[in-house]
This record gives sequence, structure tokens and C-alpha cells, in this order.
Amino acid sequence: MQRIEELAACTDEAGRITRHYLSSSHRKAADLVGAWMAEAGMPPRVDAIGNLVARYEGSSSKSPVFLIASHIDSVPNGGRYDGTLGVLAAVEVVARLHDARRRLPFAIEVVAFGDEKGRFPSTLGGSRMLAGSFDPKILEEKDATGVSRLNALETFGCNPKLIPNETRRLERPLGYIEVHIEQGPVLEAENLPVGIVTAINGATRGSIEVNGVSGHAGTVPMTLRQDAYCAAAEMALVIEQRARSEADLVATVGRVEVPGGVVNTVPGLARFTIDIRSPSDQQRLRAIEDLRHEFNAIAVRRRVEVAMTLGYEAPAAPCDPRLSQLLCEAVEAQGIAALKLPSGAGHDAMSFRGRCPIAMLFVRCRGGVSHNPAEFASEADIEVATQTLLDFVDRLAAVQ
Amino acid sequence: MQRIEELAACTDEAGRITRHYLSSSHRKAADLVGAWMAEAGMPPRVDAIGNLVARYEGSSSKSPVFLIASHIDSVPNGGRYDGTLGVLAAVEVVARLHDARRRLPFAIEVVAFGDEKGRFPSTLGGSRMLAGSFDPKILEEKDATGVSRLNALETFGCNPKLIPNETRRLERPLGYIEVHIEQGPVLEAENLPVGIVTAINGATRGSIEVNGVSGHAGTVPMTLRQDAYCAAAEMALVIEQRARSEADLVATVGRVEVPGGVVNTVPGLARFTIDIRSPSDQQRLRAIEDLRHEFNAIAVRRRVEVAMTLGYEAPAAPCDPRLSQLLCEAVEAQGIAALKLPSGAGHDAMSFRGRCPIAMLFVRCRGGVSHNPAEFASEADIEVATQTLLDFVDRLAAVQ
Repeated sequence: MQRIEELAACTDEAGRITRHYLSSSHRKAADLVGAWMAEAGMPPRVDAIGNLVARYEGSSSKSPVFLIASHIDSVPNGGRYDGTLGVLAAVEVVARLHDARRRLPFAIEVVAFGDEKGRFPSTLGGSRMLAGSFDPKILEEKDATGVSRLNALETFGCNPKLIPNETRRLERPLGYIEVHIEQGPVLEAENLPVGIVTAINGATRGSIEVNGVSGHAGTVPMTLRQDAYCAAAEMALVIEQRARSEADLVATVGRVEVPGGVVNTVPGLARFTIDIRSPSDQQRLRAIEDLRHEFNAIAVRRRVEVAMTLGYEAPAAPCDPRLSQLLCEAVEAQGIAALKLPSGAGHDAMSFRGRCPIAMLFVRCRGGVSHNPAEFASEADIEVATQTLLDFVDRLAAVQ
Repeated sequence: MQRIEELAACTDEAGRITRHYLSSSHRKAADLVGAWMAEAGMPPRVDAIGNLVARYEGSSSKSPVFLIASHIDSVPNGGRYDGTLGVLAAVEVVARLHDARRRLPFAIEVVAFGDEKGRFPSTLGGSRMLAGSFDPKILEEKDATGVSRLNALETFGCNPKLIPNETRRLERPLGYIEVHIEQGPVLEAENLPVGIVTAINGATRGSIEVNGVSGHAGTVPMTLRQDAYCAAAEMALVIEQRARSEADLVATVGRVEVPGGVVNTVPGLARFTIDIRSPSDQQRLRAIEDLRHEFNAIAVRRRVEVAMTLGYEAPAAPCDPRLSQLLCEAVEAQGIAALKLPSGAGHDAMSFRGRCPIAMLFVRCRGGVSHNPAEFASEADIEVATQTLLDFVDRLAAVQ
């Protein structure tokens, strides 16, 4: 808990927690975490992309590598626990192994990623590099102030020329686990300190435009209207209904616009966005296709036109059943029910999709609030999470 | 048709029709119409509020006064027919009486109002003054450039000190009739050149705010959401459904806002407007009360809060059955079906509500388009309207 406070003090904005990737506060945070890693018996280094990496050797120099990681950057005006909790839990687990002078049949690499929050247009550069899927084009990306990723890396003391070597370094990790606050309200609603993630949801984002016919709010009878907004409202409720009707599917209309809308005019144009997520790509893609058909049917019935443009799309990253089973056992060993839930938010873990087995443990956070100064996880819940992670590592060692 | 073109050339903006109340283009239009009034045997004058008034005396100096009027100001970038059509039809009817040297058992006052379009915060000052309900406070109102109504009147050559006299002048007019383009699509849909107005709809405008709980579009399951926008969308559809279920009721959600809405956030706040109109005040007020109950029920079910604030409210101005019957007969005498319809838009006629019997005749306009350069009424339809107005006056004279 002390360390969480110390990291919270590393910020680019006084009075807030704002820790941009490759900023001076990121450097301060990496220095702090690096010192704790060293104390836990893991010599730390900053790699070519700004990841802080520390290795706790296994019982043999040929032991495979198991990754325990999360991130130490933050959103602007963020909270104390997002990312940092997972990194500190990993350091703590290794510290306990080190104190007990235990070596496992695998090396543990603890990684504190720095590019989870989107200083540059693309994110997860650190975990993608480690997972072997780094795209060199992103080095040219610029942040909001015009600084390129390449320049920011060099300023941070990294040598981007070494990225190809890093990309090849971990050929086949044994697995990846990440502890993270839930950033949602499920564990609180279920009154549980931790939960086992089934998958990081796949997501599709899109925008929908409805074109009707603008008209006078007084003179156009209801029967003659081609009201773009009423059509859009009906579509929003169809989206909600679809997501409600299937477990684990979530869908959101987050932005809504009636351009030039005034009180006494029937809207001729309406736009809104859709964000749809599911642990199952099949479920998500089927929902989008069905919604497309329903939008068209609404448009025909209301004599308006509708166009849906899909943008960002990410496949689901399912968690590994075997690793997740070990996590369940580690939770149940503490007398706590093992609740499984999907992750609606994205995490570094998803960079390892298809590369190695992944697992995630969620920690209850108050009110489901995250990316906000009010973010809170209790000491008791954090201890459960740390104990679960340690027990998970033990169980993994036992079956390895 | 020639006169309509000449008036269209009176504009404050080259290339558009923009004729603000008390502007130099208003003055030009009044001079033109005044000349045509004089030609039709009615000496014109501009009264204390900028109305152009011309009187065609009746058979006796004690004859009561019947008013035929509309307006000659326009919205910015408006059309040729809005207002002017009614004024020119009135002048034409009197011209025909004058040519035939006919005197009726009532005097006709043709009035071209100038304050229908809202240069100042309140409107209809001209017709309200004539109807005896002028509020002297509005003289202090300022337009968008800071010019007061009082100053604008004086610049126009009016003497606002005489307003109290004008207010008392017409103690009990025999009635009021206004010919106007429909500004809606009903006559076109019914394939009829003209229609008889049953009432100028009463209207209520309000704004609705829904407060829910903002959340992460990925991490908050559907069952735990308190989505302000989905609630607002449901309310919009309830409004539409209510208006669809009752003849002549219209209701519109014209402005919609999800402040700060982004694609990946469940909206915590949504705002929208309602505009609801009906020829029956009882129908309108009952609908508002029922909607308020339905909004509350939706809010309770969705665990959000809703607040409706009612703003602008105007009672309906029903047309006089006896005058409307004469209009129907005048239409049917031309072999045309007498379609009755409410007026969804406001008109100077409504200033005479409770003061004298009112009637209105609507003229088909293409596509229902008005307040727009594309506004169009055909010569044939305008001739039907003028003939109807003349026949109406004849019929009124016969029963007077």
C-alpha cells in the first residue's frame, strides 16, 4: 500500500495522477519499481521500448519463462491502482519466493509496461514487442504535442534499434498472467474480492448515420414524418435489447448527435456510435450482422436511410483454461468462491493472444470506478490477490 | 404573381429574401403594397407599430370592420409566399370589389403586419396591438445588433406614443381571416389546392434531462447499467407513440445531447427537447401529463432520474365554426373538396383568439417547404385561394 502511494506521487501534473508513457514521471516510477525489483532479487533493466523488465531465474538456466506483468503509465487524472497494482503484486510474489530462497522450474519475468494508455495513436507497443508482434511503423507516430514515438524513446534513454532483437527474445513464453483492478462493478455486486477472467472481450466500434427528412415540428403530421432521430432512438434500443438478451454481450451507444437540431424541427439527420464487446468473436460478429439487418428494417419501415460504418475492431483474447483453472483453485483455497467474468476493457494481456497461454485475475474496485482519482481497491482485497498470485505460481510449478 | 416577384426583390440581403421587421426592405415592401392598396381603392397608412393598414369602407360609416391580413416580413433567407401571399390575396379581393363598385355591410381592413418573424425576442407585436393586447414592455426589447424596438419604430417613422390609441381603435371586429401557405405537406399529400384551418395549434415546449451513471462501455454489464441515453431514447419513442396514437396531435424531439459522450462510455447524462402541439388544449395538456408519468415510470425502471422543465406555452386558437363553414362552402363552390386541417405553425391570426372570430385558409406549397428559397405555391392554387377569399367575403356579406 505504501508503494502504491509512492507511485501515485510520480506524476506529470501536480495534484493529479497523470503518468504519460516515456515522460519524466514514467522514468521516476520505473526507477522506484526497479529498486523494488532489485530488492526482490531481480536485476531490472529498461528495454528498447521502455518496458521495465526484471528476471527471477528458474531452477535451471534452460528454464522456460513465465511472464507476470501489467503497466505503470496512467490516463490523465487517473487512479492509483490501474496497472500499478498488478506490477506491485508481481514484485511482491517474487520477493516472497526470493525470501524463501525458492527457485521454480520456470524463470519469472516481471514486466512493467509503459504504453497502455495511448500517448500515441496506437497502444500496447510494449507488450506487443514482447509478444513478437511489434509494428515498426508506429515509431513514426506523434503524440498530441508533435513528439514522435522514436524521439520520445531516445529521450527516455532507449535504443529503438534494438527492438528487433527484443521482439525475437522470448520465443515461446510458458504463459502470461496479469493482475488488474476490474474497472467494472461485477465483483462489488457479487461481494467478492477477486475474479478469474474468462477472456478479454473482442470489440467492434462503428458509427451509424440516419438520414430522414427535416420538417416543421408543427406542420408535418406524424404519419408524413421521416424523422431521423426517432429512427436512431429505436436503433439504440434494439442495440440495448440485443445485448441484454445474451450473457456477456455488452453494447453501448455512447455518442449521439442531431446536427443542427432545434426544438421546433423534425430531425433530418442523426448520428450515433456503437461499441459492442463479447468474449466470443462469433457472438459479437453475429450480433453486428443481426443489428445491421434490424437497422435496415427500421429504416425501410420509417422511410429513412441508414448507413453503418465499422471502425476499430479487436478479436477476443480468450484466457487459457488450464491457467484459469489453477487461478480458480488458488482463489478457492482461500475459501473464496471462484467467480469467472469476461474483461470488458482491453489489457496488455491481449497482446499475447495466440502467442502463449494467458490468464488474468481481477481485483474488486469500489463502485467499478477507474481512470479517475476516486479509483479504490482495499488492502484486504489486494492481499487476497497477491496471495492468489503466489499460490497460482506454486500450483503452476507443481504441475510443470 | 408579378407582385410576389416585386416583393421578393425587397430584401436586406442581396441574392436572398431577408426582410426584417422595420428594416429598409420592410419599408420598400410597405411602399409597394401601399401603392397597390391605393390602386384597389383603399388609402393606406402605416400605424404606430409598423403595420400597413388600408380600409375599404362598407356600405355605411357605422359598418363593423372585418380584417383580412397577413405579414410582409420574412425569415432570413426565406421564401416568396410566406405572408405576402395572404396580403396580396386580400388586396386583390378588395380590388375586385372596388372594380365592381361594390360596398358590403362591413368595412374591410387589409393589414400587412411586419412583426411575425422575430427580429425582437417577442413576436406578433403588430397583430397583438390591433387585437388590443399590446404589452408596452416589449418596446424595450433589443434585436441581435442591440437596437431597441422603440428606436427601430422611430427610425421607421412610427410614433410609438400612439400605440395606446391604436390598441383601443378596433373595439369589436366582426372577424379576422388570413390566407397563408400551409408550410406543411398535408394538402400536397391530399392533392388539394387549399384547406380550411380548424385551429392554430396550441404548443408546449420543454426540455428533459436524464441523469444516470456514466460507465465503461466494456466493463459494466447490461444488468448493472444506468444508461441515461437509453432512457432518453425510450422516452423519445414514447413521445412519438403518443402523438401517433391521436389525430392532430404532433410531438417532436428536435434537439438531443449526450454531453461529453464518447464511443466507449455508457452515457451518464442525456438531454432532449420536446415540442408538442394540438388544436385542443385539453388534448395537449393531457398528453404532457401522461408523458410526465411515463417518463417517471421509465426512470424508475431504469434507475435513472428524469426532470422535465416546461418552457414556452401557447394556447390553441380555434377557428370560428361559422366563418370556417363559409370558407368550406366557398371552396366546394369551385368543385374542390373542403379539407379541414389544423395549423401546426403560429400565425398572426392567433393574436385575435378570444377577441373576434378567426378563420384561415391554407394554400398548398410544394413539398411542404417554407422558410426557404425553395418555397413554392402555384399560380393555379393561388387563384383558387383568391377566388375562395372573394367568395367567402360575398357569403359573409350575404348572411350579415
